[in-house]
Amino acid sequence: MTGPHAPPGQPAPIPPYRLIAITDDLRDGQDGLADRAAAAVRGGATMVQLRLKHTDARVLASVTRALVARVPVPVIVNDRADIALACGAAGVHVGPDDIPAAAIRRIAPPGFLIGVSVGSESEISNAAGGDYTGIGPVYGSLSKLDAGNAIGLLGFAHLADAAGLPAVAIGGITTATAADVMAAGASGIAVIAAIFGASDPEAAARSLRRAIGRP
Amino acid sequence: MTGPHAPPGQPAPIPPYRLIAITDDLRDGQDGLADRAAAAVRGGATMVQLRLKHTDARVLASVTRALVARVPVPVIVNDRADIALACGAAGVHVGPDDIPAAAIRRIAPPGFLIGVSVGSESEISNAAGGDYTGIGPVYGSLSKLDAGNAIGLLGFAHLADAAGLPAVAIGGITTATAADVMAAGASGIAVIAAIFGASDPEAAARSLRRAIGRP
Repeated sequence: MTGPHAPPGQPAPIPPYRLIAITDDLRDGQDGLADRAAAAVRGGATMVQLRLKHTDARVLASVTRALVARVPVPVIVNDRADIALACGAAGVHVGPDDIPAAAIRRIAPPGFLIGVSVGSESEISNAAGGDYTGIGPVYGSLSKLDAGNAIGLLGFAHLADAAGLPAVAIGGITTATAADVMAAGASGIAVIAAIFGASDPEAAARSLRRAIGRP
Repeated sequence: MTGPHAPPGQPAPIPPYRLIAITDDLRDGQDGLADRAAAAVRGGATMVQLRLKHTDARVLASVTRALVARVPVPVIVNDRADIALACGAAGVHVGPDDIPAAAIRRIAPPGFLIGVSVGSESEISNAAGGDYTGIGPVYGSLSKLDAGNAIGLLGFAHLADAAGLPAVAIGGITTATAADVMAAGASGIAVIAAIFGASDPEAAARSLRRAIGRP
């Protein structure tokens, strides 16, 4: 999805991938997760990405519907385009083991958001058909134990440039480092623990939103 | 999908769920699996159901495309409606942990086949939105170690009647028992090991097709 053009003299609209809050787990149930997501959005998260490993599709569908009903920003689902489409989500995020973005694009309605993970040179071609890339891990990740080695700011900038789409930085980003990744060319940041793992997700999102500055 | 009405005086067309050959694994690679599927269809399998546990979505998508290109009967994919839709498959089969059939129906094109597993009274409501049910395990299953206890022919007949859709019997069915399950009201049978586990899948499918008789 390409954002609408700003009218002359107006600031560009904030893209949905400016501050992506990625869910962690269902430790406080579906309602608890929806509460935390709503708090993150109040704090300034511009999108919620539903990522729950080891959760079956029926539960994922139920959580998707709960989030879509609850938060006033786009909700995207990890991996499962069918769940996203069937449950009214705005899009999907795919990694190297998921359906290729270009294949999803063929069955997606206009405006369906597709984010694509890119973690190395060999994964750049996966970006075809996507709206934006998620590039990392920029720093070490505490949440995604299966993530690769940290690529650093230079690695991020290189892959972002090579993939040729708006690039969202992911992997261990905090308020202390958010400005650095934006300065390295990021269009946004995505975090798991830094928002959903915080004792106050609203305050955490607000601090991150301030740290990344205004587009 | 409801089959077309037969012209007066003509036999009804054979439904695609008459003899469903469900895949087992990729022990001989994607080409090997496609070879076995093609053999099953030559022997009389009327549909191929792609079921590969612990295989990532990217590989599943690749195998789906290979099967769709290779076999001249409908191919359906377990669980993943997005893969089915993106890769040109004819439908999807869902179990109790998957997206509800009614939710998939909302995003599926006309004619998209949806099979629904029903294994107990509590799962009958899952059939809503489906084209047919897969009911079992009728006998013990050697292939699906997570399948429940065998429900027997009477259990099959009861659930088939209660679900109100054409019912496909599954679970440990062989040439020795196929006629019994058809006599119990089955519209078809689905097998894993009895075809894909056979040393000669074509001959195995031919024997099963003969055993279930003609519609």
